[in-house]
Amino acid sequence: MDRKLNPEKPSTGKLYVMGVGPGAGDLITVRAARILSGLDVIYTPTGKKGAQSLAHSIIAEYLSPATEVCTYHFLMKADRAAKEAVWDEVAQSLKERVTSGQKVGFITLGDPMLFSTWVFLLKRLNNLRGLEIVPGITSFSAIAAASATPLAMENQTLAVVSCMAPETVLEQALLSHDCIVLMKVYSNFARIRDLLRRHNLLGHALMMADATLPTEQCWRDLDAYSSETKDSGQDLSYFSTILINKNGQLSR
Amino acid sequence: MDRKLNPEKPSTGKLYVMGVGPGAGDLITVRAARILSGLDVIYTPTGKKGAQSLAHSIIAEYLSPATEVCTYHFLMKADRAAKEAVWDEVAQSLKERVTSGQKVGFITLGDPMLFSTWVFLLKRLNNLRGLEIVPGITSFSAIAAASATPLAMENQTLAVVSCMAPETVLEQALLSHDCIVLMKVYSNFARIRDLLRRHNLLGHALMMADATLPTEQCWRDLDAYSSETKDSGQDLSYFSTILINKNGQLSR
Repeated sequence: MDRKLNPEKPSTGKLYVMGVGPGAGDLITVRAARILSGLDVIYTPTGKKGAQSLAHSIIAEYLSPATEVCTYHFLMKADRAAKEAVWDEVAQSLKERVTSGQKVGFITLGDPMLFSTWVFLLKRLNNLRGLEIVPGITSFSAIAAASATPLAMENQTLAVVSCMAPETVLEQALLSHDCIVLMKVYSNFARIRDLLRRHNLLGHALMMADATLPTEQCWRDLDAYSSETKDSGQDLSYFSTILINKNGQLSR
Repeated sequence: MDRKLNPEKPSTGKLYVMGVGPGAGDLITVRAARILSGLDVIYTPTGKKGAQSLAHSIIAEYLSPATEVCTYHFLMKADRAAKEAVWDEVAQSLKERVTSGQKVGFITLGDPMLFSTWVFLLKRLNNLRGLEIVPGITSFSAIAAASATPLAMENQTLAVVSCMAPETVLEQALLSHDCIVLMKVYSNFARIRDLLRRHNLLGHALMMADATLPTEQCWRDLDAYSSETKDSGQDLSYFSTILINKNGQLSR
């Protein structure tokens, strides 16, 4: 390779997988910001919906103009085989770049090891030499901070659950834990609100969409949200999350 | 006040409560780094043990030399009344500084809203005007990244539990969730290891101490740790955490 960003070790390729946080550009880590400024190539998702280009917009200000941008398109609604073909292709490409000695970046929203599809890629990298994973701010930490809602302390427990999980799983989490984070609310909103009502938890719940972005919205009364939107939740952002703290009386 | 870091709004005090992450200086957010460079005063804990001065060592490189450092001592083993007196005093001091127009910083390890004693202070601030909470990287995100251990994905669920919680709570979390984070292991090590053995989870568990610090250690075989240390866990760092992924076959 001609590019030698690190002249002492020209032949040592690296793959940096970086969590870029919930959305605000300054909620990435100093480590990620520094790495981004010295990459040979950055892999970044594209797509019609904001869900897929938000990650790139977060990092744009930190990238060096000399860094090649390599895009891929992850098919959110495709069948399993089509998705796997994309991951196979991206994994192969990443491995080739690293083996040839490049400094390669790969970004995920939030934290890479928590509810990130990046793990499908990790499974395909076969213990690649030179892999470094940089943790990121999770959406629920950002929502808890923005709403001053404590998530768990001392001997309290926290569960983090996707609203796509079976009803019995959601119910068990609501019963067993002091604090519960419900990820991926959007189209599940009406069902989840009814579930919270049955468990008398509406008074301890808040929902936030697009946390830390200019479009951020917070609802401390989920019934108010329902009446605004005719109950469907269909206009709810892809990035919407409910926090519940059974002991929480801290609304401001 | 004579100090006017923000000349447009000289009378608007702010309290920035910042999570400074698990330990490495570059795992704080860009937002926290920028805020730290422009503070009038920073509140920072002191103590005999590393547990209480680590937070300050993380931020030292970002502080302006012009920033006043205000220390307080949080009594980890004192009785409730003595602890509450410290929080009362710190809260009062913070409120006075903010009211007088200063830019005040307060730091917590990890994330401020997750298992942080800072919440005791939040309860005393009575919806203080000018409070801004900056989320931080949690220890478990850092450990998951350093060990390439996915924590939960798709419809899997995650529980985060302190090892100080009652045995029945721990057992319920181990039974109900795909992934479990066990915080505050140290003196509870032998009991927790036996619990994991009874549930056939030792093969899916790893323990990390001092994640992201130069003293970081990782054990993928908890029995090996036991034999090293005569089972007591008494030498285990205060910052030791166990991650469990029942579906995880990703050890590297």
